[in-house]
Amino acid sequence: MEKTIIIAGGDLRYGYTAETLSEKFETYAIGFSKQMIPERVNLIETPEELPLCDVLVLPMPVSDDGIFVNAPFSKNHLSLKGLLSKVKPEGMILGGKFGKAKEILENSGIALVDYFTNEELSLRNAIPTAEGAVQMMLEEMPCTIYGSKVLILGFGRIGNRLSYLLHAMGAEVTVAERDVVKRAQIEMFGCKSIPFTELENFAGKCDVICNTVPVKVITEPILKRISKETLILDLASKPGGIDWETAQELGKRAVWALSLPGKTAPVTAGKIIAQTIFHLLEERGMVNA
Amino acid sequence: MEKTIIIAGGDLRYGYTAETLSEKFETYAIGFSKQMIPERVNLIETPEELPLCDVLVLPMPVSDDGIFVNAPFSKNHLSLKGLLSKVKPEGMILGGKFGKAKEILENSGIALVDYFTNEELSLRNAIPTAEGAVQMMLEEMPCTIYGSKVLILGFGRIGNRLSYLLHAMGAEVTVAERDVVKRAQIEMFGCKSIPFTELENFAGKCDVICNTVPVKVITEPILKRISKETLILDLASKPGGIDWETAQELGKRAVWALSLPGKTAPVTAGKIIAQTIFHLLEERGMVNA
Amino acid sequence: MEKTIIIAGGDLRYGYTAETLSEKFETYAIGFSKQMIPERVNLIETPEELPLCDVLVLPMPVSDDGIFVNAPFSKNHLSLKGLLSKVKPEGMILGGKFGKAKEILENSGIALVDYFTNEELSLRNAIPTAEGAVQMMLEEMPCTIYGSKVLILGFGRIGNRLSYLLHAMGAEVTVAERDVVKRAQIEMFGCKSIPFTELENFAGKCDVICNTVPVKVITEPILKRISKETLILDLASKPGGIDWETAQELGKRAVWALSLPGKTAPVTAGKIIAQTIFHLLEERGMVNA
Amino acid sequence: MEKTIIIAGGDLRYGYTAETLSEKFETYAIGFSKQMIPERVNLIETPEELPLCDVLVLPMPVSDDGIFVNAPFSKNHLSLKGLLSKVKPEGMILGGKFGKAKEILENSGIALVDYFTNEELSLRNAIPTAEGAVQMMLEEMPCTIYGSKVLILGFGRIGNRLSYLLHAMGAEVTVAERDVVKRAQIEMFGCKSIPFTELENFAGKCDVICNTVPVKVITEPILKRISKETLILDLASKPGGIDWETAQELGKRAVWALSLPGKTAPVTAGKIIAQTIFHLLEERGMVNA
Repeated sequence: MEKTIIIAGGDLRYGYTAETLSEKFETYAIGFSKQMIPERVNLIETPEELPLCDVLVLPMPVSDDGIFVNAPFSKNHLSLKGLLSKVKPEGMILGGKFGKAKEILENSGIALVDYFTNEELSLRNAIPTAEGAVQMMLEEMPCTIYGSKVLILGFGRIGNRLSYLLHAMGAEVTVAERDVVKRAQIEMFGCKSIPFTELENFAGKCDVICNTVPVKVITEPILKRISKETLILDLASKPGGIDWETAQELGKRAVWALSLPGKTAPVTAGKIIAQTIFHLLEERGMVNA
Repeated sequence: MEKTIIIAGGDLRYGYTAETLSEKFETYAIGFSKQMIPERVNLIETPEELPLCDVLVLPMPVSDDGIFVNAPFSKNHLSLKGLLSKVKPEGMILGGKFGKAKEILENSGIALVDYFTNEELSLRNAIPTAEGAVQMMLEEMPCTIYGSKVLILGFGRIGNRLSYLLHAMGAEVTVAERDVVKRAQIEMFGCKSIPFTELENFAGKCDVICNTVPVKVITEPILKRISKETLILDLASKPGGIDWETAQELGKRAVWALSLPGKTAPVTAGKIIAQTIFHLLEERGMVNA
Repeated sequence: MEKTIIIAGGDLRYGYTAETLSEKFETYAIGFSKQMIPERVNLIETPEELPLCDVLVLPMPVSDDGIFVNAPFSKNHLSLKGLLSKVKPEGMILGGKFGKAKEILENSGIALVDYFTNEELSLRNAIPTAEGAVQMMLEEMPCTIYGSKVLILGFGRIGNRLSYLLHAMGAEVTVAERDVVKRAQIEMFGCKSIPFTELENFAGKCDVICNTVPVKVITEPILKRISKETLILDLASKPGGIDWETAQELGKRAVWALSLPGKTAPVTAGKIIAQTIFHLLEERGMVNA
Repeated sequence: MEKTIIIAGGDLRYGYTAETLSEKFETYAIGFSKQMIPERVNLIETPEELPLCDVLVLPMPVSDDGIFVNAPFSKNHLSLKGLLSKVKPEGMILGGKFGKAKEILENSGIALVDYFTNEELSLRNAIPTAEGAVQMMLEEMPCTIYGSKVLILGFGRIGNRLSYLLHAMGAEVTVAERDVVKRAQIEMFGCKSIPFTELENFAGKCDVICNTVPVKVITEPILKRISKETLILDLASKPGGIDWETAQELGKRAVWALSLPGKTAPVTAGKIIAQTIFHLLEERGMVNA
């Protein structure tokens, strides 16, 4: 018999998450508008109408106040407590960025899994994020990516994917990275690498600078070196990597790209969440063979 | 002694063309606003103020009426006759798409070169055009290019570059092409190829269809096979390759992308024009060593 | 009803050609040893035993003396006349490099097709040829291709494929090419280009120089500039592109790589011949749908 | 003032290691033949003639018996004790695979660094190793890498580099890998991934199988599925990943590729050792700015 899963709330992506999960589960969705949900998913209006389920999927972040689930496409408020009452005791709750909802979730006594910190999810999300960054570059730059000089700060998952894409498109890519081993990796794929100590000397020679490090690395001395024509793109999560105040004072072209996977490719981002959830459930024996 | 060159009119690109040419010539620009032209280029208001020059560069298309040069950024009308009188008899005129200006240009008795039909220009322009197409896909598609199924019609310069880019970005690229030799080429670079006869069967399985053939290839029977979610992008010059009326009637998502190089990457497109002009002059002995 | 085809003689490749053709034709092979021919192909000893056929495939070159077909794996001599008598009058003969066999073939009155000059064959053969060149580099060089400086002379089919492969493997590839349009193409795929006039200056800075031009381009002044550590690889057909005498006198490391597709990848090379033959027959209406 | 470094023994690579290190250090080499060592390195015959040095570089493995350093190109035995006496007390010894030499090295009281377990070295060595594997495939396979079906076992450093290279050369690459996150990585770069549980089903469909896992993964049931034409290449260190006895009994084409970096690209492998040593010394403050 198929397991039962509830998708409760979330942004545009979660409609596609529900669609993908419905290939393997009896799927219920709550907190969405009608057009977001395909026919084979059961769209429910209020928690009371939901059946008891094996798995409850909550969005990331789960909740702003710890009381209601984030559900921007829902007409009604979605009570977290009401949802928790619909999960079987031997069931499982998946969510990301628990925040104020943490206590109530943990107190429910039901197995809890954080998919936001999952490495597979982060890795796969680097694809839509990097493509979103490419889109912004194409929109903002008056020259082609081919032949342009790009500086990427940091070689984590996003720096890795972005340097791969831009190199493939014909840009001259340099990556600033602290770690010697990662610098060897960068060079192996045809890009150049520099330590962060060379940043100040290098920053003046780029068409784009793209930050992926969630620490203030683009400080005043570096900003002063950057040309007014250079586009500065910040992909790092809060608080970002740019000294924004100084950037504005100096009249630099800086753009902060937030929530890229969800905005630029909600279908793919939704499928990635579904795929990660599926693997997490498989590892925990919650998927029928 | 340096040769003298005049850049007269044209869109945003031609400001950058002037900038690049000024590295090798004494350069005069006419028909532009001040901000478009760097200091080392002499910006002139009326043809009378121009010196006699060795080379006159006209835009493409040269003129709509055969009397005035196309100069969208000019305050004044730019008389073609007035400009011609400023070229030395042993000089040279370069332009593209002569149209109604053809007769007056040919009657001037000055050597005339058409840079629009130049193969180097067309080839290099494929880069900004293909990047522009990628930008439109990133903007219009709710999924990533990575993993998407793309069908490209035609393997000329643009089809070639576009399939290269999309393949590098991780798309599954299939190219429809009539010529057996080109089909071998397509496969050599990791894409799949089909003859146009298989178009009808294949059209229903794509996330994007991108046409580069300037002939109506996406006809009613093919349009009927295409899903409503599929993006149809037409990169072909007039009259394009889609049966637009039927596409609209059937509610298909079709977009016509015109003048891409100039719109999406004017700096690069301007430099490409300059580079082509430079090579043309070099071949004709008009460049000082 | 299936058409009948005879494969007569040729090197190792032609056994695989016969194997591939047997998927679509009733296939007879003559001039081979037993182990070269799979069961579903009919191996025949003497021309007399052959049935009348629709298509006769001869090797390239067809014959050294105009009397016997080149058949290095045959115990018996293979008379060209005997073979011609086995082709139906409305049939077809395919061969490459006719040489002394030209007259007798043309006088047979049977339709004659030269597959050696076929563009598809040449294009597809660039793949095994370029891989053979890569193999020789890997064998002869004490350093990796990754990070090495490679100079390729000529950007025809082989220069194109080889530069693509070496660039993908992480070499710094420069291509010397006369044609401005091809130079633009070279740059579009991430390699550098130089005109032949810069050869003398550039030759001293390479780990490998790979010639694809069938004209003596590596002359004494250039040889003098090349380091003794540099590997010179000549892929051009006779007379090759190196001044061999001078190279030897100066003690340079030059290697002439001949007949690469047949030597290094006979299976692939044989399939390519079969595929080309199949397309040629298709174009001429000799293949049953 | 420049630091003093001694390179003592080792295979062909260490001559190039000495050459590279001599760009930054006053360099002494012992245990080599004359032709291996460039002029700017001081080649010494016996330990007694060596000056006191800051750094002593020993090969990997350091010694077979714990008494003499491995020095296959040396005429004389090279006493480990004698060498140790030439290192300043505040100096440093670098070596790999200490084995029987471990005790004497640790008892010397001099700082000891193992560069064999260094991640940068392993990562960079993946390049010559993967190229060596490509060379063996080109030599052993009768078909091109382009278009061939390759199965790689394991996605560590070597599996990663090899799949990248073969994919770039146009092979259809599938990687068997246990880890879900690595499987996501494999797919991101255009290859396919399977779990090891599918190995038995998949093994029959490949032109080459390339193992990188140092555990017996190619067992009898898998060997039985593999075609006699398929090449099996084992890149894993001892004891390798193939059931060799069964492979031989069943008449399979299996090749064990050992010590690839040193054999196929000694120059590059030697430079990689030098570069790693340089970074290790830099981290420990032993390099003068």
